[in-house]
Amino acid sequence: MLDIDFRVLHHDPTSKGRTGRFTTTRGVIQTPVFMPVGTQATVKTLDPDELSDIGFQIALANTYHLFLRPGHNVIGELGGLHRFMGWKGSLLTDSGGFQVFSMRDLVKITEEGVLFSSHIDGSRHMLTPEFSVEIQERLGADIIMAFDEMATPDQSVEHAREASERSTRWAQRCLAARKRPDQALFGITQGAFDPDLRKTSASQIVKLGFDGYAIGGLSVGESNEIMASMIDATEPLLPKNKPRYLMGVGTPDDLVRCVARGIDMFDCVMPTRNARNGCLFTSQGKVMIRNSKYARDESPLDPECRCSTCARFSRAYLRHLFMAGEILALRLNTIHNLCYYKRRVDDIHESIRSGELGQWAKSLEDA
Amino acid sequence: MLDIDFRVLHHDPTSKGRTGRFTTTRGVIQTPVFMPVGTQATVKTLDPDELSDIGFQIALANTYHLFLRPGHNVIGELGGLHRFMGWKGSLLTDSGGFQVFSMRDLVKITEEGVLFSSHIDGSRHMLTPEFSVEIQERLGADIIMAFDEMATPDQSVEHAREASERSTRWAQRCLAARKRPDQALFGITQGAFDPDLRKTSASQIVKLGFDGYAIGGLSVGESNEIMASMIDATEPLLPKNKPRYLMGVGTPDDLVRCVARGIDMFDCVMPTRNARNGCLFTSQGKVMIRNSKYARDESPLDPECRCSTCARFSRAYLRHLFMAGEILALRLNTIHNLCYYKRRVDDIHESIRSGELGQWAKSLEDA
Repeated sequence: MLDIDFRVLHHDPTSKGRTGRFTTTRGVIQTPVFMPVGTQATVKTLDPDELSDIGFQIALANTYHLFLRPGHNVIGELGGLHRFMGWKGSLLTDSGGFQVFSMRDLVKITEEGVLFSSHIDGSRHMLTPEFSVEIQERLGADIIMAFDEMATPDQSVEHAREASERSTRWAQRCLAARKRPDQALFGITQGAFDPDLRKTSASQIVKLGFDGYAIGGLSVGESNEIMASMIDATEPLLPKNKPRYLMGVGTPDDLVRCVARGIDMFDCVMPTRNARNGCLFTSQGKVMIRNSKYARDESPLDPECRCSTCARFSRAYLRHLFMAGEILALRLNTIHNLCYYKRRVDDIHESIRSGELGQWAKSLEDA
Repeated sequence: MLDIDFRVLHHDPTSKGRTGRFTTTRGVIQTPVFMPVGTQATVKTLDPDELSDIGFQIALANTYHLFLRPGHNVIGELGGLHRFMGWKGSLLTDSGGFQVFSMRDLVKITEEGVLFSSHIDGSRHMLTPEFSVEIQERLGADIIMAFDEMATPDQSVEHAREASERSTRWAQRCLAARKRPDQALFGITQGAFDPDLRKTSASQIVKLGFDGYAIGGLSVGESNEIMASMIDATEPLLPKNKPRYLMGVGTPDDLVRCVARGIDMFDCVMPTRNARNGCLFTSQGKVMIRNSKYARDESPLDPECRCSTCARFSRAYLRHLFMAGEILALRLNTIHNLCYYKRRVDDIHESIRSGELGQWAKSLEDA
């Protein structure tokens, strides 16, 4: 594909960790990368300048939400998603599949696609592989995702096999439907919690040939061990010269462990959602900012953090804003948590270059 | 008082409008000035850098709210309100009187003070002139306000007279109670909608001798004509060499009309509250951003505006954020509306220097 290029730069000799450079038409993304989630064309509470000030080069947006509101055609007419939201970095859109499968408003799944009801007004819509690609091409993200079916953990292996096989057929239809050569299209491997299904799915999806490969269906409540073994079943089958994206993951420690297992890309609502709930990541552990012990605490949230929140405000002020229901609390918390994630990713880069990622990841497995 | 100084710089020959320089221990405030309202130690949705970027030199905070949460002693221990909220400009605190008189939780008024119930937890508190000054000295704003009793419009002239006379006695107690020489203390004139009461109150308050004088009890639903005549009854009695502050006013056009009547300082929740309700001031009139006609409108909110919202985002995006319930909408709207107010004040300064304020104000009276 034109302009899209992925190069591995460094290998960690002690793990499967690697750094790389992923070039989209919009710019360069250094991998491993964490992508903040901008569900409705904004990372909640932040403006695009704040996002780039933290150092993010790419953000995620949700096809399902933007299709329903304001509509992909509106965004297309207005010059696409980057221009619409004023974001100069790269963007990735998901396929909409995760939302329609994880919401109660799902009506019917057929070979053709998925019939669902809007969570906004109850209107019915059909999402198919072709339509998902059409929407994503109209939105115009730099990376778009194949439309897949995710088996939920409570379903049988037989159901998971059917979902996985249908996802392969849908992946093929996505490839056939794509028209824009300037977007990277990623395939998604599935297979629930069954290593054999994972391997089958990965080999089928890889055979179809995508610009990158995602591992879907994880981070849905399973243990670290299950997540690790599903990655381990999939990863050896993924081509080394393409980026690997673990969808919906994860905690700061997940990032370390999963990069060490060969993952390049992540997204998760955890830093932003936790921020809005007053749960803050710091070098000294989690801070629940509503705790009364912070009422008179004039120290910054995290003395080791260089974010604009820690540079300017005390824990006491952040607690006050949060307790008083002030909107500013949510933004200052979000800035901090995303900075924490960004620093975690920077530390992972450094540990790969210095050959210490394997040890770091092992210390977290043993913990 | 040390360091506190007010100088009139220019008079508009066509009205009572004037520009001035009010020096507090914190810095210089150019008058006429509009003060954004930061009720709970933040102008809702904004951080202090955004406020100063817009050009504001002073903001208001509410004694009632900060007394209840997080408490004036907490803020005092943490180095005062400026440091607590990270604001390098000047601050004005109100006395708490307006809140306790305008809330339903008022329990009892005596000569001693006001017994009220907290809107947060129902706890009972007594606010007196002495305690209001004590709280405000602990908060440490650059300008503090005398504790007064506001008569509400539905009360009799007799009640208004009693409230006004009690306010004079309370003003005297505030002067006696003050301990900090580095804060300007403003007296508040009252008198409901009765010109004679207004004159009596003004002459009594002025006789006591304050660093500045406020006109209270207006902007509570009365017509422009009544507001104007109450200002006209009061203003000639106020010393020319002290700043005059019209509390709780007003619309952008109110600012023009009232500066022309001799007012130097204003505060109002209108720009910030309207912003959060999606009502935006523009050079082409009010924009209700939820209107569907903006869904595909790629122009900025106001082509004549230089704020960071108009520089970066379209009406279509602002509408989308607002309809989607995104917090970012509230901040971008607030930045814009406050910029509109700031520009209005800048235009008033310019019209005073060019001797055109009287004509401008007259055009708005006739409108």
